[in-house]
Amino acid sequence: MSLLSDIRGPNDLKDLSQAELSQLCAELRTELIQTVSKTGGHLAPNLGVVELTVGAYRALNTPPDLMIFDVGHQSYVHKLLTGRHKDFHTLRTYGGLSGFPKISESEFDLYGTGHASDSLSVALGYVLAQQSAAANGTSEQSAAELPKSSHMVAMIGDGSLTGGMAWEALNHIGHTGANMTILLNDNEMSISPNVGALTSYLGRIRLDRRYWGKREFVQKQLERRGKPGKQLLDVGIRVRDSFKHLVVPGIIFEELGILYVGPINGHDIEQVETAVRMAKQIPEPVIIHAVTQKGRGYAPAETNPMLFHGIAAFDVETGKVKVNGDAAPSYTQVFGEALVREAEENPDIVAITAAMPQGTGLDIFSEHFADQPERFIDVGIAEGHAVGLASGLALGGKLPVVAIYSSFLQRAYDQIIGNVALQDTHVVFAIDRGGLVGEDGPTHHGVHDLSYLRSIPGMQILVPANEIELVDALHTALRLDGPVALRYPRGSGEGLTVPQQPSQWPYAQAVELKRAADKDVALLAVGRMVAVAQEACDLLAAEGIGASLANMRWVKPLDEDYVISVASTHRLIVTLEENTVCGGFGSGVMEALAAAGITTPLLQIGTPDAFSAQGTVSQLFAELGLDASSIAEKVQTRLQQEAATTEQRAKEERATSTETATAEPTPADPAANFAEKLQAKSAPPFTNPLSAGKSLD
Amino acid sequence: MSLLSDIRGPNDLKDLSQAELSQLCAELRTELIQTVSKTGGHLAPNLGVVELTVGAYRALNTPPDLMIFDVGHQSYVHKLLTGRHKDFHTLRTYGGLSGFPKISESEFDLYGTGHASDSLSVALGYVLAQQSAAANGTSEQSAAELPKSSHMVAMIGDGSLTGGMAWEALNHIGHTGANMTILLNDNEMSISPNVGALTSYLGRIRLDRRYWGKREFVQKQLERRGKPGKQLLDVGIRVRDSFKHLVVPGIIFEELGILYVGPINGHDIEQVETAVRMAKQIPEPVIIHAVTQKGRGYAPAETNPMLFHGIAAFDVETGKVKVNGDAAPSYTQVFGEALVREAEENPDIVAITAAMPQGTGLDIFSEHFADQPERFIDVGIAEGHAVGLASGLALGGKLPVVAIYSSFLQRAYDQIIGNVALQDTHVVFAIDRGGLVGEDGPTHHGVHDLSYLRSIPGMQILVPANEIELVDALHTALRLDGPVALRYPRGSGEGLTVPQQPSQWPYAQAVELKRAADKDVALLAVGRMVAVAQEACDLLAAEGIGASLANMRWVKPLDEDYVISVASTHRLIVTLEENTVCGGFGSGVMEALAAAGITTPLLQIGTPDAFSAQGTVSQLFAELGLDASSIAEKVQTRLQQEAATTEQRAKEERATSTETATAEPTPADPAANFAEKLQAKSAPPFTNPLSAGKSLD
Repeated sequence: MSLLSDIRGPNDLKDLSQAELSQLCAELRTELIQTVSKTGGHLAPNLGVVELTVGAYRALNTPPDLMIFDVGHQSYVHKLLTGRHKDFHTLRTYGGLSGFPKISESEFDLYGTGHASDSLSVALGYVLAQQSAAANGTSEQSAAELPKSSHMVAMIGDGSLTGGMAWEALNHIGHTGANMTILLNDNEMSISPNVGALTSYLGRIRLDRRYWGKREFVQKQLERRGKPGKQLLDVGIRVRDSFKHLVVPGIIFEELGILYVGPINGHDIEQVETAVRMAKQIPEPVIIHAVTQKGRGYAPAETNPMLFHGIAAFDVETGKVKVNGDAAPSYTQVFGEALVREAEENPDIVAITAAMPQGTGLDIFSEHFADQPERFIDVGIAEGHAVGLASGLALGGKLPVVAIYSSFLQRAYDQIIGNVALQDTHVVFAIDRGGLVGEDGPTHHGVHDLSYLRSIPGMQILVPANEIELVDALHTALRLDGPVALRYPRGSGEGLTVPQQPSQWPYAQAVELKRAADKDVALLAVGRMVAVAQEACDLLAAEGIGASLANMRWVKPLDEDYVISVASTHRLIVTLEENTVCGGFGSGVMEALAAAGITTPLLQIGTPDAFSAQGTVSQLFAELGLDASSIAEKVQTRLQQEAATTEQRAKEERATSTETATAEPTPADPAANFAEKLQAKSAPPFTNPLSAGKSLD
Repeated sequence: MSLLSDIRGPNDLKDLSQAELSQLCAELRTELIQTVSKTGGHLAPNLGVVELTVGAYRALNTPPDLMIFDVGHQSYVHKLLTGRHKDFHTLRTYGGLSGFPKISESEFDLYGTGHASDSLSVALGYVLAQQSAAANGTSEQSAAELPKSSHMVAMIGDGSLTGGMAWEALNHIGHTGANMTILLNDNEMSISPNVGALTSYLGRIRLDRRYWGKREFVQKQLERRGKPGKQLLDVGIRVRDSFKHLVVPGIIFEELGILYVGPINGHDIEQVETAVRMAKQIPEPVIIHAVTQKGRGYAPAETNPMLFHGIAAFDVETGKVKVNGDAAPSYTQVFGEALVREAEENPDIVAITAAMPQGTGLDIFSEHFADQPERFIDVGIAEGHAVGLASGLALGGKLPVVAIYSSFLQRAYDQIIGNVALQDTHVVFAIDRGGLVGEDGPTHHGVHDLSYLRSIPGMQILVPANEIELVDALHTALRLDGPVALRYPRGSGEGLTVPQQPSQWPYAQAVELKRAADKDVALLAVGRMVAVAQEACDLLAAEGIGASLANMRWVKPLDEDYVISVASTHRLIVTLEENTVCGGFGSGVMEALAAAGITTPLLQIGTPDAFSAQGTVSQLFAELGLDASSIAEKVQTRLQQEAATTEQRAKEERATSTETATAEPTPADPAANFAEKLQAKSAPPFTNPLSAGKSLD
C-alpha cells in the first residue's frame, strides 16, 4: 500500500506516525530514483532533501504557509507532496512536469525558479507584501485574492548562499526583521564541492561537536531566546552579548540580525519539524542550518553526488548512465580538452568557473593542471565576481577564460560591459549552453546571449558550427585582443574528429558553403543552425530553388562585405540562429544592410520572442519551426510572396513607364520567371505575408 | 607656495612633515571645492577621503603598489596626487579629465570604474595574476610589461559593500588568502544614508568606544597578531579563538578569513599610514575599517553631504547651487511627484530604490508617505535583489515600482528575465538616466537599455518624449499587466505643465506628429529624439523635403501597423533613438518591416556601437550626429543615394524590359523627379554610401 499516492497536499503529512513517515520517505526515494532513472534530472539534490521537505511541511500549514526553493532543482519532493505524484513520470519531458517550480503548474509553486540565489529576495518581497496587507489593508481586489496569513520558508543551499544576490537579500532581511524562515540546506556542495570562505565558515560550525546531532539542542537553542515577543526584538543588544559569541555558532547571521539555529540533522524529521515550528513562532527572520547528505539513500548517488546532481537516464541497479554508444563527445568535453592543449602552449591562460567545473568541462583543465592550481579558479556561484576577477587577471597580464552557461552569464551583464568591454581587457568568455538546452526548459535556454552581447561595444562574438570549429574558435579567441565570446550549444557535437593543430579563423570572415547558380535565396546561419540550413538547402534544391549557404561564424564583427555581396546578388536573405529574433544575429545583418543602403528582402529565423518550453531539442526545433523542413517551407512561402510582389510592381512599372510594353512578361523579366517557376512546383499554399512573417513573434 | 603643485606622484608624499601634510590636505580641499564649484561633480565623497588617500599612499610604494577605487567618484584626491593637478580644472568637461578613474588617463589608473561594488573582484584578479607570475613565472612578453611586485589597496565605501558582487569577492578573497588590503571608507552613507543589516553592524562597531580614536590601538591590534609569518596563516584556528570574539569587533570579516583592523580615524593620516603599512606586510587579506566624514572640511557639505555627493556648479561662499532660474523641473522630479499622485489613488503601489532615493525622485515619495514607511523600500546598492524583491511583492499582491538608473539596472538583467518576465509579474521599472547623461561619461550613459530590455519576452517598453508623456506613461504602465519599463532621460524636461489628471496611452500606438504631403521620409523617433526630429523636419522642409514624423512611444510592443503603413508610403524610414544602434528601437522597426516583407530603405540613427565620451549632452549630440542639423544632413545624403540608386535601377529596368523606351525619364518617373529636386537644392556633396551609412558604427 503506497502512502505517497494518498498524499494530496502537505497537510496530509501531519497525520502520519513516525513509522509511516519513514515509509513515506522510503517511497519518495524510490519514486525519485525510478523516475529520474528514466527521465534524467536532478537526483542527488532531491534525495538529500526528503526529510527536510517532509519535516518542514509538517511544521507548516500549507497553504497559506508556503515553501519556496532556491534554484528549484531540489523541488521534486515538494512536487510529489503537492498533488503531482501521478504526473511525475512526465518530469522534464515535452508537455510534462517541469524540473523546477513553475507558477502555472500548481498553487503550491509561488514562483518559478532555475537560477541560483534569488529565493530570499522573492520570499522577502512576498513577506513584506503580506505584512503590509496585514498592517494597512490593501486594495479590495488584491485583498480578496490573498491568503489570510502565511509563513514563508525559503529553502536555499549553501552553494546558492555564495551568490551576491543572496547576500543582498540577507542584508535586507536582517534590516527589516521580517518574520520568515531561511532553511539552509547545507550539503557542502553546490553542484561540485563548494569553495569560498563561507564554506569554510559553515564547515567550522558543522565540525563543532557540541551541537551536532543533539536533538535537545535545537529546542534549547530556541527556548533560550525566550518566548516570541518584544524581548527578542532588540537584535543589537542580543548580538553584542559576548556570551553568545561563545555559544551561538552562526555569528555572521546573528550579526546581520538573523537568528541562527543549528546545525541540525537535516535527515531527522523531528529536528527539522521542531526547528521550523519554532522559527514560525518567532516574529523575526530565522536561519535554520540543516546539514544534509546529497544523494542520501541511493548508494551510487551518495558515492558520486556530483555525477548524480543532474544526470541522464541511468540503470537503477548499477547506477550507470545509459550511454548512447554512438553519441559524439559533447561540446563541453571538446572545449575542456582544447583549452588544456592551448594552456599547455600558453602559460598565461587561467580558467575560471562559477561553481560548474564539470558542466563547463573545466574539470578536465583542473585535473590536467593539478600541479598548477593557480591556473584554475572556482569562484562559487558568483558570475558577476567571476567576470570582474577575470578583468583583473587580464590587467595583471593573464589570459583569463571564463566558462559560464549562456543563461547564467546574464547575471554578469553589467560586469561584461563595465569591467571588461569598457576596459578593453582580453577576456575570453566560453559560453556553453548557448541556444536551446532541452529538458531544463525556459530558465536554462541560452537564447538571449547573441542579443545582449551584440549590444556591447567592442565585444567579439564567435559562433562555431561544430566541434572542429569550436576548437578553432577558441584558438582564434585566445589570439585576439579585447573581449571575445565563444558561444556553443549543450550536448553532443557532430562526431567530427578534432585535429590536434587548430586553425585560426580569418578575422570577421564568413565561410561560404554553397553558392547556388540560381541565386534565389542566401541562407546565413550561425552555430548549430548551419547544419540545419544545409539540410534546408537540399530540400529547397529539390524544389528547384537555388539556395546559397554561408556559415557566418562571426556575429560580431559581422562579415559585412560578404553580407552586402550576397544581398546584392540574391532575391532573399534568410538569417538562421538559435537566439531570439529580437536583436540577435539576424538583426545585426539587417543593421549592416540598412547602413549600406541595401533593401533585399530578409527573413529572420530564430527562437521566438517568448519563453520556449522544455523538451528534447529536436521537439523544440520542430515546435519553433527551426527544423529543416519548416525552414524550407518558410523560405518557399516568402519567395512566393516576394515574387508576387515583384511581379505586381513590375507590371505597374511597365504600365507607367512605357506605352508600348506588352501585357505579357518578356522572357527577360526575372521576377515573372521566378514566379512561374514557383507556381509550377508543389509549393505550400500562399499565406498572408503578415501572419507568416509574424509567426515567430 | 603651493605644495600640491609640486606633487608629481604619490611617493612625493613621503618627504613631507606633519605640518606640510596638514597644509597639503588643506590645499587639496581648496582645490576640490574650487574646481567642483565650477565643473560640478562628486564633492562630498572626495572631501571625506583626503587624509585616507594621503595616508594610504604614504604607506605604499606607488608604482608598483597600486590603489584602486570602488565606484571611483572618490578618486579626485588620487588624481590630484598622480600628476593631474594642472588639468584638474577640465574635470568632467568635454575632452577633459574624467570624474572617474580611467585607464587611458594615467598609469596610476589601473582600471576604469563608475559602478559600485566591483573593485574587490578586479583587485583580487590583479593580485592573483601577480602571485601567479611571482610563483611560476609568466610568458616572457607579459613578464616584461609587469611591475616586479606590488601591493594592492582597494578603497571601498560601506555603501558599496552592500552590493552582492562585493560579497562574492569577499567570500573568494577570504578563501584565497590573497595578500591585499581592503580600505573600508565608512562614512555611514552611500549617496544617501545606508540601510541594511551590514550598516547596523558597522554602526555597532563604530560606537564601541573601546577602540575609536585611540591611535595606539591600531598598532596594538596589528602587533597582537604577531609578526607576519606562518603563525598567522591558520585563519581557522585564529577565528575560533573565542577570546577574539570579545576583542575583535570585525567578526564577520574575520569569520570569512579576512583580518579586520579598526575602527580607525580615517582623518588621522598617521593612523591610516600605520594601518596600511602593517597590512602590506601581513601576507593575508586585511580589511582596514576607517571611519570618515563625508564632506569633511567644507561646512555646507558637512551639513548636507547628500546634496554635495554629486552636485552641479555652486557658489563657494554660500554653498548654494547655481540654479538656472529658467530650468524646467527634471524628469526625476516629475516622476517622483507623479508617482505620489498615483500612489495616493492606489494603496498597492510600493516604491523601491537601490540606494538612490534622491537620484530617482523617490525621496519625494518617501517623504510624502512617511506615515506608511512600508510603501518605500531602499534596499541599498543591490539592484539584483531589488528586482527579485519587486517580483515577490507583486506575487504578494503589491504593485512595485522599481526606480533604477538605466546603466545600473544592467546589474539586474538576469533578474528582470527570470524573476519578473518569466513569472509575468506586474513590476514597473522606472528607468531614469536613459540615454546620454552628460558629464558622468561612458559608465553612466544609459544607452543599452532599449537593446537589453527589448530582447526579453513579454517586456513592455514605454519611452515618453517629454514630462507630460512621462506622467502619462507612468499612469499607463501602472494599469498594464506583466513587466513594464518606462525610460526617460537625466536632466530638465521641456518645461511643459503637467496636468493633474494624466491620460492613459492607447496600447502600442504611435502618435503621428506630422504627415508630409510629399512623402519623402518618415522620421520615427522615441524619447528626447522626438523634439530633435521635429527640428530636423523643419530643416528638411526648408530644403523642400517632405518629412513625416511620429513619436513612437512604444519600443515594445511596437506599433507595427503604423510602421508598416508609413514604410509603404515613404521613400525612406529614419529611426531615431538615444540608444546604441545595435539591437535597439531601430532594429525593432527593421525586424517588424522584415517580418512584413517590406523593403523600404531605412536609416538608423542612434548612439554608436562604441563607448561615448563625457561632455554636455548637446556637445555629445553634436559629436555623435544626434543634433537636428546632423540628422537633416544624414537624411538628405541618404535620400540622394536612394534617388540615385532608384534612378539607376529604373534606367536598367527600362533598358531591359522594353525596346521602345526613351533614354530620358518620363515626367511620371518619381525616382528621377526626386533626384532632380534634390540636385536643385544646396544639398551636401554626395558621399560614399557605405562610409556614410557606416558612420554610426
